[in-house]
Amino acid sequence: MINLFDDERLDYLISDDTKQIIQSPTIFSYSLDAVLLAHFTYLPINKGNILDLCTGNGVIPMLLSGRTSGKIIGLEIQSRLVSMAKRSVKLNNLEEQITILEGDLTEKQSELKQSFYDVVTCNPPYFATPKMTEHNQNEFLTIARHEVCCTLEDVIKACKLYVKPGGKVSLVHRPERLVDIITLFRAYQLEPKRIQYVYSKLDKDANTILVEGVRDGKTGLKILPPLVIYKENGDYTEKARNIIYGN
Amino acid sequence: MINLFDDERLDYLISDDTKQIIQSPTIFSYSLDAVLLAHFTYLPINKGNILDLCTGNGVIPMLLSGRTSGKIIGLEIQSRLVSMAKRSVKLNNLEEQITILEGDLTEKQSELKQSFYDVVTCNPPYFATPKMTEHNQNEFLTIARHEVCCTLEDVIKACKLYVKPGGKVSLVHRPERLVDIITLFRAYQLEPKRIQYVYSKLDKDANTILVEGVRDGKTGLKILPPLVIYKENGDYTEKARNIIYGN
Repeated sequence: MINLFDDERLDYLISDDTKQIIQSPTIFSYSLDAVLLAHFTYLPINKGNILDLCTGNGVIPMLLSGRTSGKIIGLEIQSRLVSMAKRSVKLNNLEEQITILEGDLTEKQSELKQSFYDVVTCNPPYFATPKMTEHNQNEFLTIARHEVCCTLEDVIKACKLYVKPGGKVSLVHRPERLVDIITLFRAYQLEPKRIQYVYSKLDKDANTILVEGVRDGKTGLKILPPLVIYKENGDYTEKARNIIYGN
Repeated sequence: MINLFDDERLDYLISDDTKQIIQSPTIFSYSLDAVLLAHFTYLPINKGNILDLCTGNGVIPMLLSGRTSGKIIGLEIQSRLVSMAKRSVKLNNLEEQITILEGDLTEKQSELKQSFYDVVTCNPPYFATPKMTEHNQNEFLTIARHEVCCTLEDVIKACKLYVKPGGKVSLVHRPERLVDIITLFRAYQLEPKRIQYVYSKLDKDANTILVEGVRDGKTGLKILPPLVIYKENGDYTEKARNIIYGN
């Protein structure tokens, strides 16, 4: 039994329908970007330690838990989302594997070890320096989507702080920020090693980027095959369908 | 009439078969990358000044001359290639529009105005810091392909030196160097604005990147639709065919 509050509902994780997750249209629902990041991220299979920053309702730890036996910690600043994430973890009996922490990634977190994690993931707020008039009316969504509580640099600095030397950091973001991401990764000794561009259709500009860096890594970058989501007729491409439905 | 030396031959520019170009299998033949760069590059149509660094046998000025009435200068360090380029320009009666200069882009070029050109293009040597054993046996090809005479930073520094504020710089290179290109562009106040990735097939890693920056430009980057060269059956895709055959 699990308590649901306000307009919360239980959804299946579409790519892993053995698991359910608490979502809310007004507070937080996970996006395709989280699914793409979870799929893109390198993971140790049998053991290891993974940290997900800006974890929201815990969707990324839950998606990753199907692919690794490692321990996963999700850090989230909003209490309301921490509550959703903790209840989802419990509902799926994942308390042994997943720990959800409430905290601000720009502050010291005594429960997180520095230079320790094999993998750090983050689906951060995308929109830079909003004016007050651009804030989403809904404060939950504003914090999740805009750089109100943390900037891109804060995020990358925190990734660097927690990932071990040789460990991997993966982010999902918007193409407009590629230049900032790459220069900040370099500035924090996270060498970009794999990038994948996501295009809604083959004839459209990319709308999402997936970036993986290695702390203190050597130079050398791979640009993975383009990930196109829709065919011309609007159906999912086979690649997208396999990721979204977890085939 | 034109003189051809050694194993030189006359080829048609495939994407513009009104023009012929002098090539040589042992000295220099243009590659698909030059064609892709010429196609990718923004050009003023009626007037303006364009500079092509590392111009080789002058293929990029000749390709661009079909799309602009602006003046085009090509700079090349190897006398042997300068000779080929000059003869090709003459053969096609393009001396009014195209000037080929012999010179080293790392040195001051008195014939080139600084902060002047609307567009600077370059298809530079791709391979970094070769060991002597890795040098191509053929010195012409070694210099054209390896960073023997100029590094990537030299190239980008020269682009910055010659492009006017607000003018555009476009490069073709290998994906492995994306991080270097982006950090060097930023370091030389060339803000990346458009990037296109080229994939030999849809399921392969990118093998070429096209990057355009604007001197002193605002941030904001577009990732253009993926350019896939071959279909699964090995035929050119429609997009590639249109670029290569100039349809």
